[in-house]
Amino acid sequence: MEESLAAVMRTAVARAEQARGRTSPNPPVGAVVLDADGQVAGLGETQPPGGPHAEVVALRAAGERARGGTAVVTLEPCAHFGRTPPCTAALLDAGVARVVYAVSDPHAAAAGGAKVLADAGVAVTGGLLAEEVARGPLRAWLHHIRTGRPHVTWKYAATLDGRVAAADGTSRWISSAVSRAEVHDLRRKVDAIMVGRGTVLADDPALTARAEDGTPAPRQPLRVVVGHGDLPAGAKVLDDAAETLRARTHDPAEVLTELAARGVVDVLLEGGPTLAGAFAEAGAIDRVLAYVAPVLLGAGPVALGASGVSTITGAHKFAVEEVTMCGPDVRISAVPSRNQRN
Amino acid sequence: MEESLAAVMRTAVARAEQARGRTSPNPPVGAVVLDADGQVAGLGETQPPGGPHAEVVALRAAGERARGGTAVVTLEPCAHFGRTPPCTAALLDAGVARVVYAVSDPHAAAAGGAKVLADAGVAVTGGLLAEEVARGPLRAWLHHIRTGRPHVTWKYAATLDGRVAAADGTSRWISSAVSRAEVHDLRRKVDAIMVGRGTVLADDPALTARAEDGTPAPRQPLRVVVGHGDLPAGAKVLDDAAETLRARTHDPAEVLTELAARGVVDVLLEGGPTLAGAFAEAGAIDRVLAYVAPVLLGAGPVALGASGVSTITGAHKFAVEEVTMCGPDVRISAVPSRNQRN
Repeated sequence: MEESLAAVMRTAVARAEQARGRTSPNPPVGAVVLDADGQVAGLGETQPPGGPHAEVVALRAAGERARGGTAVVTLEPCAHFGRTPPCTAALLDAGVARVVYAVSDPHAAAAGGAKVLADAGVAVTGGLLAEEVARGPLRAWLHHIRTGRPHVTWKYAATLDGRVAAADGTSRWISSAVSRAEVHDLRRKVDAIMVGRGTVLADDPALTARAEDGTPAPRQPLRVVVGHGDLPAGAKVLDDAAETLRARTHDPAEVLTELAARGVVDVLLEGGPTLAGAFAEAGAIDRVLAYVAPVLLGAGPVALGASGVSTITGAHKFAVEEVTMCGPDVRISAVPSRNQRN
Repeated sequence: MEESLAAVMRTAVARAEQARGRTSPNPPVGAVVLDADGQVAGLGETQPPGGPHAEVVALRAAGERARGGTAVVTLEPCAHFGRTPPCTAALLDAGVARVVYAVSDPHAAAAGGAKVLADAGVAVTGGLLAEEVARGPLRAWLHHIRTGRPHVTWKYAATLDGRVAAADGTSRWISSAVSRAEVHDLRRKVDAIMVGRGTVLADDPALTARAEDGTPAPRQPLRVVVGHGDLPAGAKVLDDAAETLRARTHDPAEVLTELAARGVVDVLLEGGPTLAGAFAEAGAIDRVLAYVAPVLLGAGPVALGASGVSTITGAHKFAVEEVTMCGPDVRISAVPSRNQRN
C-alpha cells in the first residue's frame, strides 16, 4: 500500500512541477484525490495567486467521489484564511477520510492543518517522499520561508576545462541541445532570470523561455539585469517578450531584497562571471547547476569571476546532491555545505 | 551458467588489475581455472616480462584439477613462442576441456589461439565481458597495439569553476582524501607519470605512488619530466624513490616515441596546463580523468593551457564514458569522440 501511495505522491509531484513559476509567492503544490476504492478521482495543482489551492482543484475534479477517499498532497494542507479559504475546510466538507502529505507546512500562520484534520477524525500521515518534494518543487519556497530571501540557482554551461566560451568569445553551443532544452524548461519554472549588465552588453541575450523551435513559452519569468549604467536601446531584454527589471546596484543583498518585495521566490542566475562572483562572495548562491560539456578548449573566459577567495582554505564549499547525464553533458547539482573538507 | 561464468570473469579482471603496471609491454591479463565440477582450482595474472603468462600461473596453481576443467581468461590465449612458450600448449597439456575469454588478441603474431585450441577439440567461447575488459585492464595495451603509441590519460583535479589552485597558488587539497587515494592507486597501475618542467619548478612533486600513510608503493612508475632546461638539484623527482626520464622536447609525438621505445604502454599525464594543452592540441589525450570538487574559487590557475583552439567549433571533442562519485567529488572519465555535436 505504501508503495502505491508513493506512486500517487509522484503524480502529485509532477502536477506541482507544472505549477512552478505561476504560484509565487505561494508554493507550487500538487494534489491527487483517490476515491474510496483507491482509484484516481481528481488531480490538481496550485493556481496563480488568488486562485484555488491544489487540494481544492483536485476535490472539485473528484466531486462526490472524494467522499470516503484519500487526498495525497505535496504540502500539509493549510488551515488559515488567506486570499482563499483554508484547504482543511474544503477537505472536511468533501468528506475525505484520509490525508497523506509530504512536507509539513513551515509557515507559522498556516501550520496546524494536520492537527485540524486529525481532530476532525481524518486519518493523517505526513512525511511521504518529504525529502524528494523538499528538494524538488518546494525547494525555493521552503528557502524563502526560512530566510525571507528568494532562492538563487546559479546555472552555467562550461567545458570540462572550465571555459564558458572559446578564445574568440564564441559559445554556440558549448552545451548540447538536450541541456539547452532543459534550461529553457527551467526558465519556464522560475520567477525571475538574472544576469549582469555586462552579459547584456556582451551577448544581448533574450532571457526568455522558449520551446526547441524557438516558440516562446506562454508565461515568461521576470528578466532582471543587475548593474549601473544604461542598456543599449535595442537590447533584446528591453523588448516586449517579457517584463524586465533593472537592479541598479552591485550588492546581491539589495538585489534579493528588491526581488523579495516583488514576490519573487525562485531566481535563476545565468551570469556573467562578475555577477556570479559577487553572489558567491555574498553566500547568496543556494544551488549550483553546472552543465559540463565533454570538450576541451584551453583558452577563453571562465564561469566565475572574483568571489573574495584568495587561498584554498577560503573556498566556497558545496556538496554534490545529484549528478546526471543530460544528453552528452554531465549535469551537476550542488548545494552549500557547512561541512569541513579534508 | 553464463551468469556464473561472468562472475568468474570478473575475478579474472580483478587479477588482471593487480598485474597492471608490472607487465608492459605485455598485457595485464587475469585467469581463473575451474575444475571439472566448476570449482575454482587456480588463479593467476601475468608476471613481469620473461615470467609466465596468467594462464600458466593459474594452471600451475590448479595442478591436476585443471584436467577436464575450464579456463576463464581476460584475453585470448596466445599461440606463439615469445619469451615464454605459447599458452595454448600449456592449456592443452593440462587437459582443459573449455576456454572462455573476453577480448580477442589483436596482435597479429599472437592471433589464432582460439583456433588452435578449437582445432585440438577444446570448447572455446570468446567475447564474455569483452567491452568491460577492453575499457578496463586491457585499455592501454589495446591502444598501444592499435596505434604503436602509449595510452595517455590526462588526470586533473579542479573545482566546479575549473580552477586547479587558488589565487595564491595553494591547492592542498582541492580534491578529497578519497580522490587522492584513488589517484595513488592509479599511479601504481601505470608505467609512467608525466609532468612538464614547469610543474616541477612550481610544485616540486614527488610523483610517486604512495599509500594513505605516505608509505611508497613497492613498485614505482617511471617519472617523466617534459621540457628543456635543467631541474633544481634538490627537486624531489631527482631523488632515488623512482627512476626519472627527462624528455627534452615540447613535442608530444617525440615524447610518446621515446616512451614507446622504452616499453611504456600506459602513461598518466598529471600536468601542468602547458603540457596538457600541447597533448590536447596533438590529439594525444586518449582519456580525460577529471576529479571535480564541489567548491568555488573564482580565481586561480586553470587545468588546461593553450591547445590550438580559437573558436568553439574547433573544440577538442570527447564523449563521457563514466561519471561516478569519488567521495564528495565528481569523477568524469571521457574519451575522444569523432561524433559531431550540435
